[in-house]
Amino acid sequence: MYSVSPQQNSEASRPFLTWQRIIDWAQEHYRVRSFSKDEKIPTRPGLLYLVQKGAVRLVGTAQVNATSATRLARISPEEAFLGFVGTGQPFEIVAQSPFTLQSYAHVDQTSVVWMYWHDLDNWPHFRREVLDAFRYQHQRKLLWLSTLGQRRTIDRLLGFLTLLIEEYGEPTDEGYCLPFPLTHAQIGSAIGSTRVTVTRLMGKLRQKGMIRTQGDNLLCLPTDSVLTTGNA
Amino acid sequence: MYSVSPQQNSEASRPFLTWQRIIDWAQEHYRVRSFSKDEKIPTRPGLLYLVQKGAVRLVGTAQVNATSATRLARISPEEAFLGFVGTGQPFEIVAQSPFTLQSYAHVDQTSVVWMYWHDLDNWPHFRREVLDAFRYQHQRKLLWLSTLGQRRTIDRLLGFLTLLIEEYGEPTDEGYCLPFPLTHAQIGSAIGSTRVTVTRLMGKLRQKGMIRTQGDNLLCLPTDSVLTTGNA
Repeated sequence: MYSVSPQQNSEASRPFLTWQRIIDWAQEHYRVRSFSKDEKIPTRPGLLYLVQKGAVRLVGTAQVNATSATRLARISPEEAFLGFVGTGQPFEIVAQSPFTLQSYAHVDQTSVVWMYWHDLDNWPHFRREVLDAFRYQHQRKLLWLSTLGQRRTIDRLLGFLTLLIEEYGEPTDEGYCLPFPLTHAQIGSAIGSTRVTVTRLMGKLRQKGMIRTQGDNLLCLPTDSVLTTGNA
Repeated sequence: MYSVSPQQNSEASRPFLTWQRIIDWAQEHYRVRSFSKDEKIPTRPGLLYLVQKGAVRLVGTAQVNATSATRLARISPEEAFLGFVGTGQPFEIVAQSPFTLQSYAHVDQTSVVWMYWHDLDNWPHFRREVLDAFRYQHQRKLLWLSTLGQRRTIDRLLGFLTLLIEEYGEPTDEGYCLPFPLTHAQIGSAIGSTRVTVTRLMGKLRQKGMIRTQGDNLLCLPTDSVLTTGNA
């Protein structure tokens, strides 16, 4: 349902050959659990997680800042949206001060399998698939960092949306659309901006025809935009 | 020389067991080349690169922005500093519009080995080390994205410096210091800010005792800061 579009994402979407066997194994061993929208997925460092169904949202929290002595910073640490993990994709959460990573179910009925790395000894080929998936995710994050280095917020916003929709978008009448909603506050938290600013700049991008929205606030890129951004 | 500090970075710094054999193989097959400071390292997608000596700087260029029709954007695309690749570490550059990634030697006499992925068929254990290294780099980039989601530039700056020095810093009298210089323009390009702003905010952080500089403009974190940021 929320699968990665094969056309745009050939590396990450190649079939996990032993996927069904993993799912069977996980059910036999009670290593699978379902979560409702925005429910926190408990994780431990050193474990490997696989999204069986739905989508996971990764979030980072900074515990270091230049004004951390103030009460404000202690009450509301800033949470940053770090991206999705789609169906069939692995993720791991390594605890690391001064930043912490967390995972949430982004949609209802998100189902997650967990295992120890050594459980993969049974499936050496699958282990390699998982490591290749992390390699791919790493490359995507480098592109993401490229856009966050841009000075103007509107450029970071457009770059961010382009990367996200390029990876997770599905073809519709409106172009390529994200299959799940993302709030303006979440977008702001990813690009170092605020909900208010994101709302304003989204309006600008919509006016210029650079983005669209579909139905229940789903974000879209016009098809020609996806095809031609490389030549811009 | 520019090795990763084992104490702070146990996963990435575990010895590459077959490292010497790889170096020998690379020299025999003319797969190693030396670069001077800031020289561009030519790369092709699908190839794997290993830093034998020195340090590599990854840079991303955005080719999409909300005002790309203007002449200004065409003349000076924004380059973002995306991090270092230290001695013994692998990197790869996957071409991907609307962003391009590039690599430069960050210090003189940086030496880089290149190979095809299938060359690693000879060293299956080493292949796994490389994939684990990418897995580690991916986790670091998630932490990096966490700090770039912070709204205030000074928080992004401090978070960025903390992560960088935590990973690459070496113990000195001034605390943990980066072993190579990084310009304020490069720092600004990483955190979505300008050279001028970085210079101003670095002054503030220095006044507060949150960062230091050593000798020839090397960036340092006071030792107690590294140890206590998690409790801030």
